Amino acid sequence: MDEGDPHGAVRPGGRTARTRALVLDAVTSLLVEAGYDGLSIDAVAERSGVHRATVYRRWRDVGGLLLDVFDAAAGDEWVPADTGSLVGDLIALNQEVFESLRDETSVTRALIAASFRSAQAAEALPGFWRDRYRRCEVVVSRAQRRGEIAGEVEAHRLLVAATAPLYHRLVLMGEPPRVEMAEQAARDAACSALPVIGGPGYQARPTE
Amino acid sequence: MDEGDPHGAVRPGGRTARTRALVLDAVTSLLVEAGYDGLSIDAVAERSGVHRATVYRRWRDVGGLLLDVFDAAAGDEWVPADTGSLVGDLIALNQEVFESLRDETSVTRALIAASFRSAQAAEALPGFWRDRYRRCEVVVSRAQRRGEIAGEVEAHRLLVAATAPLYHRLVLMGEPPRVEMAEQAARDAACSALPVIGGPGYQARPTE
Repeated sequence: MDEGDPHGAVRPGGRTARTRALVLDAVTSLLVEAGYDGLSIDAVAERSGVHRATVYRRWRDVGGLLLDVFDAAAGDEWVPADTGSLVGDLIALNQEVFESLRDETSVTRALIAASFRSAQAAEALPGFWRDRYRRCEVVVSRAQRRGEIAGEVEAHRLLVAATAPLYHRLVLMGEPPRVEMAEQAARDAACSALPVIGGPGYQARPTE
Repeated sequence: MDEGDPHGAVRPGGRTARTRALVLDAVTSLLVEAGYDGLSIDAVAERSGVHRATVYRRWRDVGGLLLDVFDAAAGDEWVPADTGSLVGDLIALNQEVFESLRDETSVTRALIAASFRSAQAAEALPGFWRDRYRRCEVVVSRAQRRGEIAGEVEAHRLLVAATAPLYHRLVLMGEPPRVEMAEQAARDAACSALPVIGGPGYQARPTE
């Protein structure tokens, strides 16, 4: 095992795994408190209580620490909620996204910001998101099995349509968070997949 | 006039305006080439050919330079294209957004990245976007005048639904740009405002 490689250092449940958890907790808490500029091997060692030499040997630098935060997140068991309907599932998903972004002190916001500072974080963030969106595709396949979606729907496109307005409004545009944003964006996106006669947003109009 | 304030230094058409144009061009070209770390009063002075003391006196620091880039952009005459239909207007808008983001060397990408580095840029970017989205609201009011939209539509929400997937996929998620993204996101967003019997994406389903 190459101890210089954080990937090789993962032994679930062992002392190595506990060290990793302490270090990665320190990384995210420092990132939220002080931003990318507050991150250093020394600060992480002090915050985590893990010896500086160990942090340096396993993670090498701030980029290696950030990369491992994304790797750890990718290894969790998260799946989207199953509420029984496409709209319900998209609303539940968006409520989670909203909660992850609503505070100035959110880890997600801090990681997005870090991805504009660290080349390694910039490379890791898209992969993390691809994995999350892939896990969400079950929301669309369940809706197809239930017969909610009759036509062709590109799952990734629908999931991005639902969630992107939250990232755009809260992270890039700096709008104040309002809880209804989550449900609104979910319903707007669902519309393109399942317009229903008389359903929400439906307006009867003659075709041209 | 306080020459330390870039707002006060604007005299359209005069020597001051030419100096400002040279300096701001230097800021955006340096930003695109070398990122935030490549920006400094010295680098801007050298690139623009404007005396270092003048740059320092009028813009003070990198934050002041970035702030003035946003101020200058807010002062342009941009309006969204009028194509005669809501879907057409949203597609035209999204094609502009797409073009502004598609290259790694885009000014928009560079300014978004800078907003995660500079507190002044972070404060200025949302205001710039609010102004742009406000100018786009005419797209929705024109559609209402034409009778395309019968119900209540929140203009800002619809415009963000159309454009946000492009920012999310191209800037945050790092997806490779595909030209069809612009039209797809525009059509998906338009759906929530004007579902039409037999129109694109329409599926007849009984109401529950």
